[in-house]
Amino acid sequence: MGVVVPLEDKSADRLIEPLTTLVAHAMARVNQTILSRTGSEVAMIPEVANHLISSGGKRLRPILTLATSGLCGYSGEGHVKLAAAVEFMHTATLLHDDVVDESDMRRGKEAARVLWGNEASVLVGDFLLGQAFKMMVEVGSLPCLEVLASAAVVIAEGEVMQLSAAKDTETTEDAYLAVIRAKTAALFAAACEVGPILAGSPKAEIAACRGYGANLGIAFQLIDDALDYGGSSAKLGKNVGDDFREGKVTLPVVLSFRRGATKEREFWRRTVEKGEIVEGDLEIALAAMKKHRALEDTIERARHYGAMARDALELFAASPWKHALRDAVEFVISRAH
Amino acid sequence: MGVVVPLEDKSADRLIEPLTTLVAHAMARVNQTILSRTGSEVAMIPEVANHLISSGGKRLRPILTLATSGLCGYSGEGHVKLAAAVEFMHTATLLHDDVVDESDMRRGKEAARVLWGNEASVLVGDFLLGQAFKMMVEVGSLPCLEVLASAAVVIAEGEVMQLSAAKDTETTEDAYLAVIRAKTAALFAAACEVGPILAGSPKAEIAACRGYGANLGIAFQLIDDALDYGGSSAKLGKNVGDDFREGKVTLPVVLSFRRGATKEREFWRRTVEKGEIVEGDLEIALAAMKKHRALEDTIERARHYGAMARDALELFAASPWKHALRDAVEFVISRAH
Repeated sequence: MGVVVPLEDKSADRLIEPLTTLVAHAMARVNQTILSRTGSEVAMIPEVANHLISSGGKRLRPILTLATSGLCGYSGEGHVKLAAAVEFMHTATLLHDDVVDESDMRRGKEAARVLWGNEASVLVGDFLLGQAFKMMVEVGSLPCLEVLASAAVVIAEGEVMQLSAAKDTETTEDAYLAVIRAKTAALFAAACEVGPILAGSPKAEIAACRGYGANLGIAFQLIDDALDYGGSSAKLGKNVGDDFREGKVTLPVVLSFRRGATKEREFWRRTVEKGEIVEGDLEIALAAMKKHRALEDTIERARHYGAMARDALELFAASPWKHALRDAVEFVISRAH
Repeated sequence: MGVVVPLEDKSADRLIEPLTTLVAHAMARVNQTILSRTGSEVAMIPEVANHLISSGGKRLRPILTLATSGLCGYSGEGHVKLAAAVEFMHTATLLHDDVVDESDMRRGKEAARVLWGNEASVLVGDFLLGQAFKMMVEVGSLPCLEVLASAAVVIAEGEVMQLSAAKDTETTEDAYLAVIRAKTAALFAAACEVGPILAGSPKAEIAACRGYGANLGIAFQLIDDALDYGGSSAKLGKNVGDDFREGKVTLPVVLSFRRGATKEREFWRRTVEKGEIVEGDLEIALAAMKKHRALEDTIERARHYGAMARDALELFAASPWKHALRDAVEFVISRAH
C-alpha cells in the first residue's frame, strides 16, 4: 500500500496512479497490441485509427480489464488481447458517435470525420470492431465472447435510445439513466467482467467485478455530462456546452428543466428541443444550472454510484489491486473538481 | 434431380429455385431468427432494420450457408443461426454503405438514411453487427467465429480500399479486383465455409466450399457492376447509373477508360473523377461502354470466376445439393441478361 497517500493531497490524476502503476507492464503489451492491430495494408486505416487512438485518453477501460484480472489473480496472457479489444470497441463507438453527433472535436483534436469524412469514420469504426472480435476469438473464451458481444448489442441499443430521446426535454431521470447504463456502463461492466472469467473466479466475484464496472461507468458518464457544462475545453478534449448545442438532454438539463419555472422550461424547449440557440444562451443555461444546483446534484448522483462501485469490491480481501480500484472510483468522481 | 430442367428453359429466377427448394425448411427458421433478433425495446431498431430486411433481396448469402451445410451432410441446427448472422453482417454493411455513398435508394425503396437519418443507419448497423456476433457465440464454434470475424475485418478493409480508390480513373483491373474480393467475396466465402466446418468436413472440402463462395462472390459483384449500367431500376433495386454518379470506378469504367482514346479518357476524368456530370453524360458513358464492349467483357470476366466456382464443387459426389449450387452460379451470371 506504499503508493496510497492521504486523500487530501491527491489531485485527480494522482488518484489513478496506483492503478496505472500496477498495470504498467501489462498495459505496455496492450498498447503494443493496439498499435499492431490497427495496422493494415490499406493506408487510410492506421491513419484514421491512430489519429484518435494516439490522441490519448486515459485508456481507463483496458486498464480496468487488466486490474480486475489482477484482482482475481489471473496469471495468463489473455487479458492483454481482451483489454485491447475493449479499447477498440470504445474507439469504434467514438468514431461512429462523431458521425451521429456531427462533432467537430474529439479529445482536443479535430474529429476524424472532419479530416477524412463521415465515410472513413464509419468504415474504420467497423474495421476496429471486427479486429476487436478477432482478438476475442483468438483468446478463445466463449463466456468472454458472450459478455463482450452482448455489450456491443446493448451499447448500440443505448445509442439509438439516446437518438430517440434526443432533444426531448420531457426525458425523465430514469430514461436518462437507462441510456447511460446502456451506452457507457455496459462496456465498463464487460471490461471488468472478462478478467475474472478468464481467471476462473467464483460466480460471486465475477458478479462483484461486473457490478463495480457498471456503477463506475454510470458515475463516469454523470461526471462527463457535468463536465460538459463545467470543465475547461482542454480538460475535456471538447468544447464546453457541446451537449447543449447538440440538444443532448443529459442530467444537468433534466434537473434544471424539472426544477425550473414555466419561463425556464420555455427556454429549454427553445434551445435544446428546437435548437434555436442565440448568443448568450449558454450563459443563461449555466446560470439556471447554478440556481438549481443541477451540476452539484449530478455530481452527487455520481457519488452514489461511486459508493456502490466501492462496495461491490468489499467482497475481496485487502490487496494493492483492491485499493487501487477503490482510488479509481475517487479519480472518476474528482475529475469534476 | 427432379427439379432440374434443361438450361434453355430457365429464366434467371428458375435457376435458383432448386436451391431455394432444398433449403426452404431451414430458411423458414432463418427468417424467424432474423425477425426475432431484430427485436428490441428500442422501437427505432426493429423499424429501421425491418425496413431494409423486409424489402427482400434473395438472401443469397444465408441460402449459401444452409446449402453448403447440406452439401457436407450437416445435420445439426447451428447453421440456422450462422446463416442469420451472415445476413445481419450483410445488412449492417448495406446500412453503413448507404451513409458512405449518400445513396437515396436501396432495394427499390428509399434508403434508411433518408427516412431516419445517417445516425440511425450507423447505429442500427452496429446493433445488427453485435447481434450477428452474439448468435455466432451462441453456436459456440470458435473456428466459425474466427472465419466470420476475419471476414468482418476484411470487408471493412475492402470498403476503405474502395473509398481510397474512389474517383480514380487510373484504377487497375487488379486493384478493382482486390476491392471486390474484400468487400463482397469475403462474406460469400465465409458464408460457404462455416457450414462445412460445423459438419466436421475434411479440410479439402472446407477449402472447396470456401473457394466456391469466394469465386461466386466475385462473379456476383462483377454482374452487379455491369447491371448498374445495364439493368432496369426495378430489377436492381436502385437507379441505373448510380455508380457513375457516385464516381465509383468499377470494371466497366476501368475497361472503357483503358480502351478509350485521349478524348474519352478526358470524359471519364471530368465525370467520374471530378464529378462534373451534365445531362446526357450517362448516355455518352453507355455509348463508350458499348463501343469498347465493356459490359460484355465484364460479364465475360464474371463467367471466368463462375467457372472456377463450379470447378471448386467437383470434389463432391453428385447430389441434389451439388447440382443446385452449380445452378446458383448460372443464376448469378444470368441476372445480367
